[in-house]
Amino acid sequence: EAIEMAHLLSTSCSIKLSSCCKRSSKPLNQGLEAFPTSFTLQAFKYPFRSLVSQGQKPLRNYTVRATTLPISKEAPPQPSSGTHQTSNEPSKPQRVMVIGGDGYCGWATALHLSNRGYEVAIVDSLIRRLFDHQLGVDSLTPISSIQNRLRCWKSLTGKSIELYIGDICDFEFLSETFQSFEPDAVVHFGEQRSAPYSMIDRSRAVFTQNNNVIGTLNVLFAIKEFREQCHLVKLGTMGEYGTPNIDIEEGYITITHNGRTDTLPYPKQANSFYHLSKVHDSNNIAFTCKAWGIRATDLNQGVVYGVRTDETEMHEELCNRFDYDGVFGTALNRFCVQAAVGHPLTTRGYLDIRDTVQCVELAIANPAQPGDFRVFNQFTEQFSVNELATLVTKAGEKLGLNVQTITVPNPRVEAEEHYYNAKHTKLVELGLEPHLLSDSLQDSLLNFTIKYKDRVDTKQIMPSVSWRKIGVKPKTITA
Amino acid sequence: EAIEMAHLLSTSCSIKLSSCCKRSSKPLNQGLEAFPTSFTLQAFKYPFRSLVSQGQKPLRNYTVRATTLPISKEAPPQPSSGTHQTSNEPSKPQRVMVIGGDGYCGWATALHLSNRGYEVAIVDSLIRRLFDHQLGVDSLTPISSIQNRLRCWKSLTGKSIELYIGDICDFEFLSETFQSFEPDAVVHFGEQRSAPYSMIDRSRAVFTQNNNVIGTLNVLFAIKEFREQCHLVKLGTMGEYGTPNIDIEEGYITITHNGRTDTLPYPKQANSFYHLSKVHDSNNIAFTCKAWGIRATDLNQGVVYGVRTDETEMHEELCNRFDYDGVFGTALNRFCVQAAVGHPLTTRGYLDIRDTVQCVELAIANPAQPGDFRVFNQFTEQFSVNELATLVTKAGEKLGLNVQTITVPNPRVEAEEHYYNAKHTKLVELGLEPHLLSDSLQDSLLNFTIKYKDRVDTKQIMPSVSWRKIGVKPKTITA
Repeated sequence: EAIEMAHLLSTSCSIKLSSCCKRSSKPLNQGLEAFPTSFTLQAFKYPFRSLVSQGQKPLRNYTVRATTLPISKEAPPQPSSGTHQTSNEPSKPQRVMVIGGDGYCGWATALHLSNRGYEVAIVDSLIRRLFDHQLGVDSLTPISSIQNRLRCWKSLTGKSIELYIGDICDFEFLSETFQSFEPDAVVHFGEQRSAPYSMIDRSRAVFTQNNNVIGTLNVLFAIKEFREQCHLVKLGTMGEYGTPNIDIEEGYITITHNGRTDTLPYPKQANSFYHLSKVHDSNNIAFTCKAWGIRATDLNQGVVYGVRTDETEMHEELCNRFDYDGVFGTALNRFCVQAAVGHPLTTRGYLDIRDTVQCVELAIANPAQPGDFRVFNQFTEQFSVNELATLVTKAGEKLGLNVQTITVPNPRVEAEEHYYNAKHTKLVELGLEPHLLSDSLQDSLLNFTIKYKDRVDTKQIMPSVSWRKIGVKPKTITA
Repeated sequence: EAIEMAHLLSTSCSIKLSSCCKRSSKPLNQGLEAFPTSFTLQAFKYPFRSLVSQGQKPLRNYTVRATTLPISKEAPPQPSSGTHQTSNEPSKPQRVMVIGGDGYCGWATALHLSNRGYEVAIVDSLIRRLFDHQLGVDSLTPISSIQNRLRCWKSLTGKSIELYIGDICDFEFLSETFQSFEPDAVVHFGEQRSAPYSMIDRSRAVFTQNNNVIGTLNVLFAIKEFREQCHLVKLGTMGEYGTPNIDIEEGYITITHNGRTDTLPYPKQANSFYHLSKVHDSNNIAFTCKAWGIRATDLNQGVVYGVRTDETEMHEELCNRFDYDGVFGTALNRFCVQAAVGHPLTTRGYLDIRDTVQCVELAIANPAQPGDFRVFNQFTEQFSVNELATLVTKAGEKLGLNVQTITVPNPRVEAEEHYYNAKHTKLVELGLEPHLLSDSLQDSLLNFTIKYKDRVDTKQIMPSVSWRKIGVKPKTITA
C-alpha cells in the first residue's frame, strides 16, 4: 500500500441518517448515475480526445464535456490492455505481480488488472491486517480474508489470481515468487504506508525504513537477476517533494546555474520517516535504472480516497478497506465518518481510487524503456484541508447529515500555509480520465460511511501520534 | 569511517627503492620540513588571517604566505578548542563521541581531538577489521589492536580515551553509551564506507544500506532522547552529488523557476548503494533537524589520502591503516603502492587526512544551531585520476622509483569525462588551512609505501568488483 496520509483535525462526531440516505445504501453501483456530463477543470487539460475542442497548449480555465460511460467500459489505451505488444508472436496476457495486493490500493489494482485481461499474482505478507490488530483499529467496511476474496473473484468472473503469502524482505521467498510467476511487470505497493505509524516510536521508524528500503532493494535485485525486462511500477508519494516555494515538477527539474544548465532530480524535502523511505526508494531505483538498465516508473501518488471500483462493488466479499483511524485513515475518510475542519492547513494532491487503478494500468500498458526512470505525479486535484471539509459538509448536507466542525492542533511539523502547485500532466497525456472529488463524495465515500455507520468506533478517529513526541520506548497505541 | 572510494585503474607493479629512500624511512615527522612557505591557490581564498593581505571578496588567483608551523601547534580557532563556550561557568572540556573511532578517519580524528583537549570516547564494533579477514586483505601499515592503541596513547600523553565496543544498530548498546558518556558532540564515522563493497553482491548492498541508515537513525534517536543539545557531525561524501553538469554547491541551491525562487536541498545523483546510503542519511538528518530541532553538520568529504597526522606519528603503535586493496583502497593509495594510470576519468575532490581531523574539529568548535542542518563540502583540491597518476609518477621519480602506467577498464557505471566544479568555502571560512597533495605525496604517502614495501601483497590491488556484475548470490571475494 502506498497511499498518502493526511491529517486528522476532527473531533465531535454527529452523523444523522436522513430519509434520503435509504437510496444511498442501495447497491452502490448506482452511484455512477452521478457522473457529470459537464464540469470545469483548472490549470491543466485532460485529453478527452475527440470529445473536447481544445488548443495545443494547456489553458487556465475551460469547460469540457465528457460522456457518462464508466471508465472500465471504455476502449483501453493503445496497446490493448493485458496483452503483449510484439506483433510477431500471438498476443498473450501480460503477467503482473502486485506486491501488497491485499491492501487498499493493491487490492483494487489487482482486481482491475485481472478484469482487464492481465494475468495477476498477489504477493503480500498480510502485515497490514496485523497492524490493525496491534493498534486496536479496524476498517469501517468489513473485509474478507484474502483467500475468500480470491475465491469470490474466481466464482464471479472465472478469473484466477495467484497468491504468494510472504515477506519481500525475505529474498529467498521473493526469488521463488519471481521464478514461479515470471512477471512482465511488478506493481509495488508492498510498503508500510502510514506517516503517523512511522512516527509512533523508534522501532516503528526503523521498521518503516528497513521494511520499505530493503524490500524495494530486493525487488530490484530480483528483477535484475530473474526478469531483466520486467517493468517496475513503484508507488511513491507526492509527499516526497514536501512543500517547496516553487512549482513541483514531475520528478526532474531543469536548473540553470552560474551559466550552465542541467536537468536534475527534483529536490526532495520529505516530512516523516515514512515519506523519507519513499525518497530513499526513488534514489535507489534511479541508480539501478542507470547502472543496470532497469525500467521503472515511479508513481508519486497523492492522497487516495474512495472505496468503490467497478470490481470491488461486484460483491460484498470484494469490498475494499476504509480506514478512518488516526494512524492509517486519511483526513478525507475521517471527515466523511465524522464531520470536521481545521484551521487553514496544508494543500495536497488527491485522487479517487478508481484513478489509482487507471494510472497503474496506464503505466503498465505504456512501459518505461530499459534504463529509464520515469516519474509521474499521480493525483487529479489539489485541495487544502479546509476545502475538503467544506466539500464534505456540503455533500453531507445533501444527504441530510448534520455536519459540525471543530479545530484541533496539527500533530505534524510543517508550515500551516504555503505555496503548492504540483504538475501532473504525464498520466493525463497517457489517457487518464479523472473522477473528481465533488462527484465521488456521495457514491464512493459518504454512502459507505452511512451504510456501515454501526461499525463506527469513534475512539479510533483522533490523531494519536505527534511528530515531536516520538521517543525511543516502544509505545502501545490503542484506539 | 566515511572516506570516499576512488577507482583502481592500475595493474603492473614496480617499486624500486633508490638510495634517497633511506631518508624517507626515517622518523616520519621529518616530512613537515616539506611544508611550503609559499603557494598559489585558485578559485577561493584561505583565511590565513593576519598573515595574508587580502580583500573582502574571494579572488580568483593570488599568492599567500603561510608559516611552516605545524597545524596542531597553531592557536586553535575561537573558541579555544576542547572547552565549552559559555562564559558564566568554569570552562570544562567538551565531550566528543567518535563513532567508528577505530577506522581510518575515525582513529586519526579521535587522537587529534584528544590531543587538543577534548574528552574523547570511541564507539566501534571493529567490523572494519572483520571485513579485512573476510576479503583476505590487510592494511599496508601494521595496525595495533584498539586496546593497545589506547594504552599506547595513554602512556605517551597521559590522556585517556574511553572505549565502547558494540554495534550502533543495537539501540540498547547505543543508549548505554550515550547515558554513560554524555557526549556534547558526536562525530559519526561508523558506517560501511566502501562503494565497491556495497556492489559485491545483494547481501552486501542490503547490509550497507541497513547498517548505515539504521545506525544513523539510532544516533538521531539517541540524541533526541538523551542529549538534545548534542551536535551531530556526520561524515557524508562528495559522491552524494554525483556529477551534475552545473556547479556543485554546499548542500543547498537557490532555484528560480517559473518566476518563483526557493533554496532547496541540492539534487543528489549517487552512484553506488554505499553513496546512496549517505544520501538517505542526509535526508533523514535534515528531517530531524526540522522536526525535532537536532543540530547537525553534514561533512560531504572528498577522497582522503595520507597516513600521518601529528598524533599517529608519535609511535608505531598509533600508526593508522593504509588500504590499497581493490575494495577499500582508494586510487591514490594504490597508485602509491604501484604505479598506474587509467584513460581520462572522473574528477573528484581530495583532502589530506590532516585536513579531515582539522575539519572535524572546526565543525565541533563552531557547532550548528538547534534545528540547523549545515552542509559543508569537505575537500581541498580537485584532481582527475590522470592528474593523480601524473603527480604520483613525478613524486615517485624524485624518490628514485621506476613508475609505469597501464590502462584497465572502469568497473563503475559513470561518464568517463564530465564537468566537475564543486564549491568548498564554508570550512575555509571557519579557518581550514589545507595540506596540498603535491606536498603530502612524499611525506604521508610514498614514504609509507616504501617503508612497508615488504608487506605489499600485489594480489590485493586489482579491482574485483564490477557495478554491472553484482548478483544475488553471496560472493566470496579474496585477494
